[in-house]
Order: sequence, then structure tokens, then C-alpha cells
Amino acid sequence: MSSELKKALIESLIRPEIKALNSYHVPDSSGLLKLDAMENPNPWPGGLTQEWLGTIRQVEANRYPDPAGSKVKAGLREMMSLDAIEAKYGCALDILLGNGSDEIIQMIALAVASSERPIMAPEPSFVMYGMIAKFVGMPYVGIDLDAKFQLDTQAFLKAINLHNPAVIFLALPNNPTGNLFAIDDVRLIIEASKGLVVIDEAYIAFTDSDLLSLAAEYANVVVMRTLSKVGLAGLRLGFLVGHSAWLTEFDKVRLPYNINVLTQASVEFALEHYAVFEQQTRQLQVERKALFDRLSNMQGVSPIESEANFILVCCDTVSAKLVFSGMKARGVLIKCLDGAHPLLANCLRLTVGSAEENEAMLVALSFVLSSIKSAASSSSIEPLT
Amino acid sequence: MSSELKKALIESLIRPEIKALNSYHVPDSSGLLKLDAMENPNPWPGGLTQEWLGTIRQVEANRYPDPAGSKVKAGLREMMSLDAIEAKYGCALDILLGNGSDEIIQMIALAVASSERPIMAPEPSFVMYGMIAKFVGMPYVGIDLDAKFQLDTQAFLKAINLHNPAVIFLALPNNPTGNLFAIDDVRLIIEASKGLVVIDEAYIAFTDSDLLSLAAEYANVVVMRTLSKVGLAGLRLGFLVGHSAWLTEFDKVRLPYNINVLTQASVEFALEHYAVFEQQTRQLQVERKALFDRLSNMQGVSPIESEANFILVCCDTVSAKLVFSGMKARGVLIKCLDGAHPLLANCLRLTVGSAEENEAMLVALSFVLSSIKSAASSSSIEPLT
Repeated sequence: MSSELKKALIESLIRPEIKALNSYHVPDSSGLLKLDAMENPNPWPGGLTQEWLGTIRQVEANRYPDPAGSKVKAGLREMMSLDAIEAKYGCALDILLGNGSDEIIQMIALAVASSERPIMAPEPSFVMYGMIAKFVGMPYVGIDLDAKFQLDTQAFLKAINLHNPAVIFLALPNNPTGNLFAIDDVRLIIEASKGLVVIDEAYIAFTDSDLLSLAAEYANVVVMRTLSKVGLAGLRLGFLVGHSAWLTEFDKVRLPYNINVLTQASVEFALEHYAVFEQQTRQLQVERKALFDRLSNMQGVSPIESEANFILVCCDTVSAKLVFSGMKARGVLIKCLDGAHPLLANCLRLTVGSAEENEAMLVALSFVLSSIKSAASSSSIEPLT
Repeated sequence: MSSELKKALIESLIRPEIKALNSYHVPDSSGLLKLDAMENPNPWPGGLTQEWLGTIRQVEANRYPDPAGSKVKAGLREMMSLDAIEAKYGCALDILLGNGSDEIIQMIALAVASSERPIMAPEPSFVMYGMIAKFVGMPYVGIDLDAKFQLDTQAFLKAINLHNPAVIFLALPNNPTGNLFAIDDVRLIIEASKGLVVIDEAYIAFTDSDLLSLAAEYANVVVMRTLSKVGLAGLRLGFLVGHSAWLTEFDKVRLPYNINVLTQASVEFALEHYAVFEQQTRQLQVERKALFDRLSNMQGVSPIESEANFILVCCDTVSAKLVFSGMKARGVLIKCLDGAHPLLANCLRLTVGSAEENEAMLVALSFVLSSIKSAASSSSIEPLT
């Protein structure tokens, strides 16, 4: 086996766009306070664990899962009151299940994949929109948000006219900025688009905004959600709600048994106890408010108002990269966004954790900010001594 | 919302190849003896269930899974003695994890997707090779097996020369025929191919054949396996073994957190107790032999020798469709392959179950065969009375 031959084969076979990619990097978080990935800090509440295990015990791991995920869908349908929306708008809505929103995005992209009509999204937003466009060989067009992280609607409409995108992704609340876009702007974009508009409500659990009915109201809108931020990131359950006519097409590119038996059983169980998660996410909203207030009063950082379970924080005078590594050295893992997009220069993203976790994060942040400042002032003094 | 508008939008947006597809159909099996899907009939053995639940209890469902699946890979590495193969061939092998083989096939296809170089496979074989080619917009070329379900090597080599396939899939044992291909033919194909050859060993647990070392020996071979047939179909864990240089590229199109926490924890646990599954699959080989002998002695059907946990059975004089529906009416679900490929005309695929399940299947089959025959003879007599 010649390694030269292998190299030449890989060179000739793997698509150049893929070769040029780096794998999605996830930093090692072992031993760290994990506030980088918008996880709900609460495991199954004590009383529920035992009951959940009772459900898992019934699962036949030797049998293929229900390919349709019927019970999961029935539970989601009830949780979202889909029947009421269908009745109000006189339409038939359906649900598509994926391994996280990622797989949903991939199914949509595969179903429409075209080398002419791009995927379009505001920037900065969820990075997987652009990544998955690349995976399926579609062009991708990002339209910068304005300085307040709102949609630049005129630029967006112009780009729609120019590129005729197959799919537009709009995340409300948006990740990593945390804000909602103005609904009037969203409607203008939907109405101007000759393609599909996917409203990504991954962070719906932390806001009063709810755009589910847009999927009923418009012929070209579907709404994507996930249980990851609600408190079940480990199960990988994303879902899409939309007119049955759309979902029938996306379902054709779904891998038949995509949702495993343990996720199905656990989600069914979780949906029966959904009030527990609602209580947790309400509490996280309270903690977000407290965290935002503390950050607002801190010298050297500017937090952005958030409707999600994270807060974008821009460092005013110190380097976000230094703050990130200083906090990591003190055992707190957050996300450094500096370099990800010009609008995110010197920005950090802090996941909202429990009161105790947020306190530990603030202590670390405060310590790191002052050590950077004192190091800077001592080094600026140094030449004088 | 106009339904006309929606229809026109879907028409203009969904790729024609996808619109023309039907969703993968999985028949309802509720209340039936399920011998249609190559599942291992054994759940976790009694003693292990409690221990497994103890592992699951430790899982943090609120946290994202390990994106690399490191512990799962370490367990698989040991199970396959990858270190020994690496040492023998002086190369570095790696493992890629997917939600079933399906997701692995999709990653390979996405990484190489080309509108010029097709995916190629013998036919009949695993249907997802062709389906996924369609999903990612690649051409697909199927090369018919010969009448003994062996590779038609001359036809295959000619087709390689003509189409220069990007990827060739060879399943050993092959599904749905159950046989192995001659290894000399496999080598000829590997050596003629200027693309990648994926050896699909989904049914490795039921044969003495083991082609893992081909992944080390050849620059253009990777080997795909799964835990589904071993006894863990519900967990959806497929994996690919190959040179690190190849797997690095495929990993770039992997969705970052594709394997959920519960599957990872359960697979880690299962690999620690792998002897249990080996004992079960050995027992299924014993049952396969018994089932084959019984089928061989049955009037009206011809079973094909199998190295997998299923047996292809061709009906000599009666309609396979009638046998299928007759058996279903008697509570036994098998797979009817009539119509799937000319070589499968009038064929059924029987999964090897436990001794009791196989007995029940044989009783139903025998009953149905004789009722069809007596109905045929009475209807042929009827006109005379």
C-alpha cells in the first residue's frame, strides 16, 4: 500500500470544498465549568430519574426504532397545540424529526440542493447554515446584520432579488447575538422570497416570541425547533413543523431509522413531564436577567440584551481572547467569538447557568479583567522604572 | 395562504429526483412475529439490564454528547484488534461513527459527490447505496449478480472502465442474498477501481469471513460495520474503519454531535460485555443451519445458503406475494422481495430468529404453502365439477 497512491486518490476523489474544510472543532471541556454551549445546567430532577429509567428498561435495544417516531410526534404536537393552529388556519401541519437541528437543516438542503440557488442567512448567525450548504454543494450567501444586530432589511431584499435563494434561515432569537429580529422585517423577507424560509426557534424556551403560526400562515415558511436548549442536548432531537406538502418531500431524504429507540423513549417521557422543563427554563430567564444586570455594572464589558439562554458580551478595552484563556485557566469554559465575524470582534458568549455557576463565572471574569488591566498598567509603567 | 402557490413553490424548489421518490416504506409490525428486519431476537440478557440501567443513570441528558465519541471508538478498536492490524501493515487506521451504516454511506457520498463519477454496486444488494446516491445527487450504476448471486466480474470490470465510479459498495455477506462473494473477484474489483471501495460487513457477526485487513492492505479500501445485526439495532450505531487520511475527510462532513449520549453510553457498556453478543450470534448461526435444513426439505421452496442472519427463499411454484400475505395473516412478518429485482422474482427473505420463532415461522410457511396449493388444485378442479 503506497501512501503516495492514497494521497493521489484522496486528492482526486474528495471534493475540493470539503478538502479545504476543517472539522468542526469542539474544545475539550473536561474538569471545566461548562458555560460554552447553551446547555441547561439541570439534569433530570431527582424524582424523575427513577421513573425515566423505568421507561428505558422497557426499550428493546435489539429492535429497530419506530421509523416514523409516531409517539414522539404525537407528544410534540400536543406540546405545541398544533391542532389549534391547524383549525385556526385551516391547514394540515406535520412534524419531521432529526438528530438535532443539524440533521433537519441537512435534509432541507439535500431536498432542494442546487448549484444555482443559494442558501441565505443573516450573519453572524448559526454557523451550520453555511457549513451544511457546503456539505451538500450549495452556494451560501451571508448578509451582515446591522450594528445593533438587527436585519439589514434593504440589503437582504436586494440580495433576495439578486440571488433568488432556495432557502433562507432566520434564527429568532438569533445565535450568537441573543436578540430577536423585528417581526416586520421577517415578514418583508418572507413575502419577498421565492424560496423557502426556515424560522429557527432553537431558543424559543427563553422568550415570549413564538412564530409557529407563520408556518400555517405562509405557503413558504417552516419552523424549526429543538429539545437541546430546553434541557435535553444529549438526546439530539430537532424537529421541523410545516405544511404536510413540504414535509412529505423532506421526509423522502430522511434516513429511515434516524431517531434511535432510547431518544424516542426519553423524549416521549420528557414530553409527559414538560412542565418540569418549563419551570427550569423560566428560572434560567430569571438568572439571565440577574447575570445581565451584573455584567452591565462591570467595567470593561458591554453585554447585549438577550432573549436566549446566553449573553453576548463585547470587551471594551481588553482582548476577548485573553479573557477567554484567562477564564479557562481559572476553570470556566465560555465561547470566544473574536475572529468569527467582524461584528463579533472582541466578543464572548456566556451561557446562562445556575445562580451558582453564573456567580463563579462572574468572579472569574472579574478577576481576569482586573489582572489583564493591572498587567497592562504595570507593563506600561515598566519602561519608566 | 394559497395551496396553489404552495404547490408551485414545491414544484420549483424540490429536486425532480426527490419529488419522484417515495419515502422508504416500513410496514407496520405491531402484534406480529417480526422476522423481516434481521434483528437479533434477544434483548439485553436478564442480568445485564440492571447494570446497563446503572450506566444510563450516570448519563447527563442535558449535556451535548462527546462529539468525537472517543470511548466508543476505543471500545470498537479493542473489539476489532485494530492495533494488531496497524502493526502488521504499518499504517494508521481510524474509526468514523454514524447513526447506522446509513449515515456513514451518506457521509462518504457527500464527501465525494460528483455528477460525473457514479456510485456503483452489485444488484441485488443493500438498497440504501442507490437511495443515498439519489439523495446527494450522484448517478448510480447497478451491476447484476450472476444467477448464483456471485459477482459478474467481467461485467463489473467493464463497467468500472466505462464509468470510473467514485465509490463501489460490496456487501459481504450480501443482503438480501446472504452469500459471500469470491474474494478473488473482490480483489480484482479493488485493483481495477480508481475510486474508493467500501466493503460492507454489516453481517460479519454471522460468518467466518473477515475482510477488515483489506482496509490496511489497499490504499482505496474502507470497511463498514454496524452493531445493528449484532443485537443493538435500536441504538443505530454504524462505523467505518479505514486509513486516517480517508476518515479525516469524511469526518469533515459529519454533523458535529451525531451520536447521542444514550447510544454512546450503551455502546460503551455493550462492548465491555461483547462476549454476550458473540454467544447470541453464534447461537443464531446454529439456528440458521437448522432453519436451512428444514427449508431444504420443504416442498415448493428453495432456500439459498446463507452466511448472514437471514435466508433468501425462492418459491418454486406458488406466488411469493401470496405466501407473504398468508403468513402475515397468520401473524408472521417476513420480507417479500418479489418485484425488487428480476433475480429476486418470487423470493422471500426470512430473518433467523430464536428456535421457537423459527418453528412458528416454519409452521406458518408450511400451512400457507399447502393452503395455496389446495386452493389452486380445488380451483383447477372446480370447473370440472
